[in-house]
Amino acid sequence: MNFIEKLTSVSRKNKSLVCVGLDPDSSLMPLGVSVSQFSREIIEATSDLVCAYKLNLAFFEAMGDEGFKTLKNTVGCIPEGVVSIGDAKRGDIGNTSKAYAKAVFDVLGFDATTVSPYLGFDSLEPFIRYADKGIFILCRTSNPGAADFQSLLCETGSLASPLYQVVARKANQWNKDGNIGLVVGATYPDELKRIRAICPDMPLLIPGVGAQGGDLALAVRYGVDSRGEKAIINSSRQIIYASRGKDFAQAARRAAQELREQINNCLNIA
Amino acid sequence: MNFIEKLTSVSRKNKSLVCVGLDPDSSLMPLGVSVSQFSREIIEATSDLVCAYKLNLAFFEAMGDEGFKTLKNTVGCIPEGVVSIGDAKRGDIGNTSKAYAKAVFDVLGFDATTVSPYLGFDSLEPFIRYADKGIFILCRTSNPGAADFQSLLCETGSLASPLYQVVARKANQWNKDGNIGLVVGATYPDELKRIRAICPDMPLLIPGVGAQGGDLALAVRYGVDSRGEKAIINSSRQIIYASRGKDFAQAARRAAQELREQINNCLNIA
Repeated sequence: MNFIEKLTSVSRKNKSLVCVGLDPDSSLMPLGVSVSQFSREIIEATSDLVCAYKLNLAFFEAMGDEGFKTLKNTVGCIPEGVVSIGDAKRGDIGNTSKAYAKAVFDVLGFDATTVSPYLGFDSLEPFIRYADKGIFILCRTSNPGAADFQSLLCETGSLASPLYQVVARKANQWNKDGNIGLVVGATYPDELKRIRAICPDMPLLIPGVGAQGGDLALAVRYGVDSRGEKAIINSSRQIIYASRGKDFAQAARRAAQELREQINNCLNIA
Repeated sequence: MNFIEKLTSVSRKNKSLVCVGLDPDSSLMPLGVSVSQFSREIIEATSDLVCAYKLNLAFFEAMGDEGFKTLKNTVGCIPEGVVSIGDAKRGDIGNTSKAYAKAVFDVLGFDATTVSPYLGFDSLEPFIRYADKGIFILCRTSNPGAADFQSLLCETGSLASPLYQVVARKANQWNKDGNIGLVVGATYPDELKRIRAICPDMPLLIPGVGAQGGDLALAVRYGVDSRGEKAIINSSRQIIYASRGKDFAQAARRAAQELREQINNCLNIA
């Protein structure tokens, strides 16, 4: 089963576009709970409510020696049918990207990863070559500084268009195996709408609802494809830090349930 | 001592702009030699000939469980006075970049790192905030696909200029603490010349000589500042895989010596 089939299958089964972002930061976690336990319990409490988990590699790397093992174990806790996304935002020259792709797909076993487009096609090709995996290219990110470069008007042919739209069009061209998706922040709904128009069938990974303040209703309306699918709405802090007490996993479950319901309500209205 | 002082000091002491790129790929290494031993012996054999070592995180991540420890041990083998660069090309939203910066500077102890500009200022700020460390922003990379986005003409004010030049100008604006540098491939000498004109005082990390085919004489001529300094000329494969036999470290020493001499000859002519 390739990435798109797996994503579609779990989204339908769990009736969910929710992705839980695992950004384990011990200063925000309940006292006395290890990152391994924290991540495992949250996964166990929510895996019937989500389509995917997005593991942010930075937070595991910042742990030092134990980080890699903890990351690998956490990927192993994700049930077979649920999508695992390694949020790594890698991108380097060809032979280096090959090593990064090996790390994220072969060693860590993720179903999908995020990559940065700045170095161009040959930096992404070693990832894209994994035809059964999902490759999410950064397009319009959710942060305030996104506009610094992504909004620059670029001359391409007769009309100028913002850099993020050039990236979206290139992603279409490169999508021979149908395994490319884009990262688009919920904090920029107009841009999300335009990107969905450029790439009507691509899966979009949409962070930025919750702590970052993106509008959920617009993220759903503009983010889904014509069938109301292929949007992966990520929430990290709002779900995993819903409680800092011993009930953190149950609180995460409630928060995930609520987000799923809100998203599904938006879909029914749309 | 801050990054620039350390770089200048070691470059003068060793009369060298050479940076050895440690990209340990076991399929290219001598048989029966571990990555730890390989890296350590190469460092021991070359540390009086170079200004810096650039460790490519991808190759350590691809090793799996042992990668992080090996990476950390290798950083520990670099003599105190020689610059260590963690080539990671990270870049993410603020709280994630903070975790990446912690990993590369606090946990791994690098003097400098490479970052990707696509997400804009707030993605780089958590790195730049380490005022004593060196932050090399990708500007014009050495690979063939670099042109896909980096050469796009962007509208900025009255004149259009290529994206990589917009990045160079932004880097100047952001350089309040004097700790920012740029990554510019030797494979694009004209672009290197323009970037040096925009940023006359910044350190430039210049990969792409050797296996990638960049012109060394032009890289030196256009890469150095007005004092003939602040260019960090990286060579990876040409040095570390100079021999696949037991004499790999001695062969690396000869290759590093030769590169240093070639660079210094270019400087004397210029």
